[in-house]
Amino acid sequence: MSSELAGIFTPTLVPLDDRGEINEQELARFLNWLIEKGVHGLYPNGSTGEFTRFTAEERRRIVRITCEVARGRVPVLAGAAEANIKETLAACEAYAGFGARAVALVSPFYYRLGPEALYAYFAEIARNSPIDITLYNIPMFASPIDVPTIRRLAEFPRVIGIKDSSGDVAFMMRMIAAVRPIRPDFVFLTGWEAVLVPMLVAGCTGGTNASSNAVPELIRRMYDLTRAGQIEEAMKIQYRVLELFDTMLYPFEFPDGFRAAAEMRGFRMGRGRQPLSAAQQADRTALQRVLRCILSDFGLVEPPPEGCAPRTTITSQDKIAQVVYEVLNELEKRGVLWNKP
Amino acid sequence: MSSELAGIFTPTLVPLDDRGEINEQELARFLNWLIEKGVHGLYPNGSTGEFTRFTAEERRRIVRITCEVARGRVPVLAGAAEANIKETLAACEAYAGFGARAVALVSPFYYRLGPEALYAYFAEIARNSPIDITLYNIPMFASPIDVPTIRRLAEFPRVIGIKDSSGDVAFMMRMIAAVRPIRPDFVFLTGWEAVLVPMLVAGCTGGTNASSNAVPELIRRMYDLTRAGQIEEAMKIQYRVLELFDTMLYPFEFPDGFRAAAEMRGFRMGRGRQPLSAAQQADRTALQRVLRCILSDFGLVEPPPEGCAPRTTITSQDKIAQVVYEVLNELEKRGVLWNKP
Amino acid sequence: MSSELAGIFTPTLVPLDDRGEINEQELARFLNWLIEKGVHGLYPNGSTGEFTRFTAEERRRIVRITCEVARGRVPVLAGAAEANIKETLAACEAYAGFGARAVALVSPFYYRLGPEALYAYFAEIARNSPIDITLYNIPMFASPIDVPTIRRLAEFPRVIGIKDSSGDVAFMMRMIAAVRPIRPDFVFLTGWEAVLVPMLVAGCTGGTNASSNAVPELIRRMYDLTRAGQIEEAMKIQYRVLELFDTMLYPFEFPDGFRAAAEMRGFRMGRGRQPLSAAQQADRTALQRVLRCILSDFGLVEPPPEGCAPRTTITSQDKIAQVVYEVLNELEKRGVLWNKP
Amino acid sequence: MSSELAGIFTPTLVPLDDRGEINEQELARFLNWLIEKGVHGLYPNGSTGEFTRFTAEERRRIVRITCEVARGRVPVLAGAAEANIKETLAACEAYAGFGARAVALVSPFYYRLGPEALYAYFAEIARNSPIDITLYNIPMFASPIDVPTIRRLAEFPRVIGIKDSSGDVAFMMRMIAAVRPIRPDFVFLTGWEAVLVPMLVAGCTGGTNASSNAVPELIRRMYDLTRAGQIEEAMKIQYRVLELFDTMLYPFEFPDGFRAAAEMRGFRMGRGRQPLSAAQQADRTALQRVLRCILSDFGLVEPPPEGCAPRTTITSQDKIAQVVYEVLNELEKRGVLWNKP
Repeated sequence: MSSELAGIFTPTLVPLDDRGEINEQELARFLNWLIEKGVHGLYPNGSTGEFTRFTAEERRRIVRITCEVARGRVPVLAGAAEANIKETLAACEAYAGFGARAVALVSPFYYRLGPEALYAYFAEIARNSPIDITLYNIPMFASPIDVPTIRRLAEFPRVIGIKDSSGDVAFMMRMIAAVRPIRPDFVFLTGWEAVLVPMLVAGCTGGTNASSNAVPELIRRMYDLTRAGQIEEAMKIQYRVLELFDTMLYPFEFPDGFRAAAEMRGFRMGRGRQPLSAAQQADRTALQRVLRCILSDFGLVEPPPEGCAPRTTITSQDKIAQVVYEVLNELEKRGVLWNKP
Repeated sequence: MSSELAGIFTPTLVPLDDRGEINEQELARFLNWLIEKGVHGLYPNGSTGEFTRFTAEERRRIVRITCEVARGRVPVLAGAAEANIKETLAACEAYAGFGARAVALVSPFYYRLGPEALYAYFAEIARNSPIDITLYNIPMFASPIDVPTIRRLAEFPRVIGIKDSSGDVAFMMRMIAAVRPIRPDFVFLTGWEAVLVPMLVAGCTGGTNASSNAVPELIRRMYDLTRAGQIEEAMKIQYRVLELFDTMLYPFEFPDGFRAAAEMRGFRMGRGRQPLSAAQQADRTALQRVLRCILSDFGLVEPPPEGCAPRTTITSQDKIAQVVYEVLNELEKRGVLWNKP
Repeated sequence: MSSELAGIFTPTLVPLDDRGEINEQELARFLNWLIEKGVHGLYPNGSTGEFTRFTAEERRRIVRITCEVARGRVPVLAGAAEANIKETLAACEAYAGFGARAVALVSPFYYRLGPEALYAYFAEIARNSPIDITLYNIPMFASPIDVPTIRRLAEFPRVIGIKDSSGDVAFMMRMIAAVRPIRPDFVFLTGWEAVLVPMLVAGCTGGTNASSNAVPELIRRMYDLTRAGQIEEAMKIQYRVLELFDTMLYPFEFPDGFRAAAEMRGFRMGRGRQPLSAAQQADRTALQRVLRCILSDFGLVEPPPEGCAPRTTITSQDKIAQVVYEVLNELEKRGVLWNKP
Repeated sequence: MSSELAGIFTPTLVPLDDRGEINEQELARFLNWLIEKGVHGLYPNGSTGEFTRFTAEERRRIVRITCEVARGRVPVLAGAAEANIKETLAACEAYAGFGARAVALVSPFYYRLGPEALYAYFAEIARNSPIDITLYNIPMFASPIDVPTIRRLAEFPRVIGIKDSSGDVAFMMRMIAAVRPIRPDFVFLTGWEAVLVPMLVAGCTGGTNASSNAVPELIRRMYDLTRAGQIEEAMKIQYRVLELFDTMLYPFEFPDGFRAAAEMRGFRMGRGRQPLSAAQQADRTALQRVLRCILSDFGLVEPPPEGCAPRTTITSQDKIAQVVYEVLNELEKRGVLWNKP
């Protein structure tokens, strides 16, 4: 029953030690914290987990540790894409053995494959996998999977869901409209927490959201409020999550902003495997201050000693703009400004 | 007070006669019908109204007729972009004289301008316009306007809102987050009815939706249900509107599918000004059958004599796929199929 | 005979006076100067001529003046795209009457049309035009025209050539390969002078190049050298033209950098119709210094009083980099640096 | 001395056996054939060599075999990108040990990195690599490397060249203009044989061209003719190579069309690792007929029994089109057709 894959899955970050190796102890501590904070499941070897920057052996180790830490408390959805189908099926077998609930398979990347080739690829795996599969569509990084192909792949019992990171609500609805009639229990997970509430309103099942590495409680609360029909309350959090998401995403090479935020929650993430330039390291310091303010607004960390602008209300800069606007408006009404009819 | 611009505005199609000239009588009849069906306002000279395919004189005539038909029953938001700022301001003056409530100004197209140039362009118009302005962002056709530029332009009293046709819910939220603190009454209209309900949930004010030329009652009902908090009911319509929207949009050159649908509601739209190839004309015939089925599902036209697949439930094709799926699933459980651990 | 359209055509800029109106006298003086400097033809109402920013009446006036100044000394290729086919055919008729050699028709813009619609559009004009037509493909601004559609349109006697501004040499070759077998005299003009010499080597007929507003002598010389088989000499100029082109194109809103350069050649271009922000106006001042250095390297204007870096040889900055490189290389060879096997 | 990297390098395909394993014997036979046909060097683990579809161990094996077969007769440029910098440096060390002349490093893919991160990545490798490096820019698959970053990286002695597969001649010239002044011996290789002759004319050093797996003699002849200044002769081959390239590239998933062509030259390439749908396999059969005709035009294989259209002259279809055109033209001149002034 695929309903175990509903809710919030964290695409988990991987802490590294000073030599750039997996910090297994810190990883376990981090995963335990996520479970305690209420995420519904763990998703190792996702894009946030930088699966491409680890070796095949390391990817396996990460899934094994994750399954061991989860100990059945929450389901594990394990990224299992390897260099080719044979290697991928071997990973599927291994992860089934570790106790993963399902695997997530990103569509082939580097080469951009068309629909026929994507179908052939996923179909061959679906016919042979010993474990349930969720497709993973992330058009900005990998070959985009179109709706008719998803529909065709949904005919394989092994294919039980899709994770989509396009952030396009209409695309999510098109997938749901195409697949739900033949697979009422198919799982639709969004990877774009910037619009998690609208996605849930539109019918998607849950999310695998990078931000839940930084603010698992908030993503969970946003999900629960939406499910309870308290859309307005949920949207209030959604607006702050959007701000936090944009702050972690755009000024950085992904997923470095998310690593910076997780460090502020008390975990030694270490330097990522993609080196940073001197300029980027300086940026990170500046951003940690911004992040701290946002996190403290949510009550998740202490505010910085120098304080933060009161973001829950209008900022002082906004206030000045509002006054300017009102003065101009008044002057205009009195005919002092510009040409009016 | 910009609240008059809330709700559903129809970016009105223009009926043409056999010589390709504006069919003024049919236009008036069409506009009256839209008002009777409940749209909150009329929006002539939008993209749906093919403003680029009319001469400056014709665009003026279209706005004049629209204001005359509206007679204050509903507000008119008139597209006023012309070849340059001087011509645009002349159009603004004329439309103010006709009684339009505000003008909509698409960002400059053909050339793709950057933020500084966009600001300079809109700012010069905002300083001199005798009528309120809504910006119009449609990145697939015209220079995209970014959030900081929208924020800067919102400091002009004359700029009272924005229409956005990106269809990106996160972008809508970013605009709202940036502008609302200084302009609580700023109007946010989405041009992407594929996700109208999620957009409204996310905080936008209303829509200017091409589909309301074909199904004004439905777009209005969807809006009202959302405003009343009946999100689930609204989403049911939303899914059918998405299907209708996709059917009118993708197989055709825009806005020809919308013209075909309006004809099915009883209006002689005539041949558009962009000629169609023989192949495209044949397609149109085929599509009218599809459209009729969708419209009859909504109870808006009679079903075709040959009948329609029952789209409110699962289609027969879907049923076969579902049976295939269940049989395969059962065989797999019994170990008959494929390799399981 | 379409060979009259071979060589370098200048897509002419339009000088404006202080009120933003066409400065007819300066326009005539500018066109005469271009003819004297050796361009093979004049091309009013192109993208460089900002045709979209003028009214239909102004576009007509610009072509009339251009034909009057040319007086048969050089052929005129006149941009004739108007709001719709009827208006476009009226412009074709007018321009034929003024004495233009042919018209250039940009593919429809704003809406992005597919191949069938593009064919229907151009075919209807080709059947009815009283003057020869060159198609105009500029994918960054208007609907892209694909090779099979160009091949089909080449069957109309009225269609005698194509101007392509994609800058893609392989695309130019694909067009030539598709059309030459049935139309040995078809004209292929490139709008991308960054690679004019490679384009001519690949078989294209000539160019309509914005840079020839600034350096008509150089573009002409580059063309003549290539035609004479002196490819190496031509490429030396090509590298400098690329630098000049990039300097005029990228830091500005098009075609403002080209207007700035034409002013440095002695013509009062005036402020463009697209307003500039304060920041952009400052940039322009800075750029004029850079442009002056490049132009003076070509001997076309005096160098600025403060002098220019000697660009014909290696710059001093480059020299430092070269020394650093050689020192590092030497140290490395001696095993002083880094780990070598 | 990097001049050894001038000329044509074949990004070699990898023959597979029936189980999908590397067919080592056939690989050796294929590489020997390429050397005999005159390519200047071998380039294993390129995009054409499907490096992402092999395991790290297999990639190493491919380079070892290639170096063993080359035995110093031609230089080997070995693709060495691995999951992260540590693994990449280990591959560099191994390939230096095998006798490779240099390594090629594709910019990081999946994640799209910005200039600062790309610089940090390549710089760290350049500081530590025991073997010379060529950068590899392929914007359609991997993070694009911009000119300023290339210029900065050219300051490392270990970085001796760049392979660029953008196909953009102006971009090639911008790189050359930026780097040559400080590194006169820097190697510029184009991966886009569709425009190899224009690229060489523009100053690039050579090519790493997938088509040289199918027609090594032709690519070599085209290169030699260009170097000898026989541009017109070279362009005649270039036009046919463009046709061949397009035929191998566009109807297939890359590099399957190139594998099909190599099979026609007598090598058992086997099924690729990316499975094909039934439709794609049928396409392949159809294409082999087309390819055979093109190859036989070049005299490289026998024509098919059913014969080929005479492609060296105008085809019969073209002749009909030409006659139609001439008849229409004549009728038009006589005033029988359409409206003329």
